[in-house]
Amino acid sequence: MSSTRDIDALIDLMARLPGLGPRSARRAVLHLIRKRALLLTPLADMMQTVAATARECINCGNVGTADICDICTSEKRANGEICVVEDVADLWAMERSGVFKGRYHVLGGTLSALDAIGPQELRIPRLLDRVRDEAVSEVILALNATIDGQTTAHYIADQLEGQVRLTSLAQGVPIGGELDYLDDGTITAAMRARKSI
Amino acid sequence: MSSTRDIDALIDLMARLPGLGPRSARRAVLHLIRKRALLLTPLADMMQTVAATARECINCGNVGTADICDICTSEKRANGEICVVEDVADLWAMERSGVFKGRYHVLGGTLSALDAIGPQELRIPRLLDRVRDEAVSEVILALNATIDGQTTAHYIADQLEGQVRLTSLAQGVPIGGELDYLDDGTITAAMRARKSI
Ligand SMILES: [Zn+2]
Ligand SMILES: [Zn+2]
Repeated sequence: MSSTRDIDALIDLMARLPGLGPRSARRAVLHLIRKRALLLTPLADMMQTVAATARECINCGNVGTADICDICTSEKRANGEICVVEDVADLWAMERSGVFKGRYHVLGGTLSALDAIGPQELRIPRLLDRVRDEAVSEVILALNATIDGQTTAHYIADQLEGQVRLTSLAQGVPIGGELDYLDDGTITAAMRARKSI
Repeated sequence: MSSTRDIDALIDLMARLPGLGPRSARRAVLHLIRKRALLLTPLADMMQTVAATARECINCGNVGTADICDICTSEKRANGEICVVEDVADLWAMERSGVFKGRYHVLGGTLSALDAIGPQELRIPRLLDRVRDEAVSEVILALNATIDGQTTAHYIADQLEGQVRLTSLAQGVPIGGELDYLDDGTITAAMRARKSI
C-alpha cells in the first residue's frame, strides 16, 4: 500500500503517544480521517500553534506561552507559599482543585539513583534560589507517595531546614475511597493520623 | 491560566480521540510539548498532509490518497475474490496477515435497525454492482461474529444468492487461545466444526 505511506507514518507517530499502542493508534487515525474537517484539521492547526508557542517557565517549570508563566507573574499568587510538585500534570491537578493560592515549583521528576537523576537534573538548585530570593514563608512538598517521591521530599527538606516552614500533604483515605481497594500503607497512614470526630 | 488557552484547546481536541479520556489527553499533550521537535512538529505536519490527501476509494471504501485505492488499481489483486469487511481497520488486519490476495469491499458498518442503518448507508448497493460488473467468482463475508455482523452477512448473502460463490471465515479457537477465556458461542462453533487429526 505504497500511496498510504503518509497514513502509515501518521499511525507510527500517534503510536508514540503515552497510552496509545499500535491498535489504538490505527483506530485514532481512522477516526481522524473520517472527522477530517471537525477534528483532523483543527488538531493539526492547534498542534502547530502549540509547537510554536509552548515553553517552560524559566522560574517554576510550569508550561505556558511566555518565558515566565501566568502564575509566576500574577501578584495575587505571591502569598509566600510555594507548592513543589514532580510534574506539570500535578500542577494542573492542584489548579483544578482550586485549593492552593500560591505559586509552584515543578521539579520535572524525582531523584533516582537507578536512573542517575540527581538534584541538578530536577530544578532543585532553582528552588533553593527562589526560597532565598523570593519572600517565601512556606514550602509545601506535594510529591507523590512513592519511594522516589518521598526520597526527593526528604532531600529537599534537608536542604531547606531552618530557612522556611516545610509541610507535606496529609495522607489518608481518598474521598469516596473504599478501604478494601486501598494498599496497606495508605490504611496505616490514615489510622496513625486519625482524628476525633 | 489564560495564556495556556491554546494548550487547553489542544487537550480538548485530543480528548475526542477514541481511547483517550481527559486524563490521558493531558498526559499526551505534556508528552508532545516535551518532545516538540521529535514528535509534536512531525505529528502536526503529518496530520496536515493526511488531511489534505486522504480519501475513501470510490470503488471499495478503503482509505488511501487517490480516488481509486492501490488495491483496486492493482491488476495482481484482480483474482475474482472480494472480501467484504465492516471497517477499514478490518481490511488493514487482513492485509497484515498477508493471507488474502484479492480485493476488498468496506461496508462502513453493519445493518442496525436500532441506529436506522440500512443497506443504502452501507455501500451494499455498490457491492451488488461490483459483483455484476467485475469478474467476481467468490465473495468472502468477513464480518464480525456479532449479531449485527451476522445479520448483515445474511442480508448480503440473500442479495447475492445464485450469482457468485459465497463464503465466510471459519469460526473456532484462536491460535494461542485458552478455552477458559473463550465465550460459549466460540467453543460451540469450534466443537461443531471439529476436524480429524
Ligand atoms: Zn512559573
Ligand atoms: Zn479500493
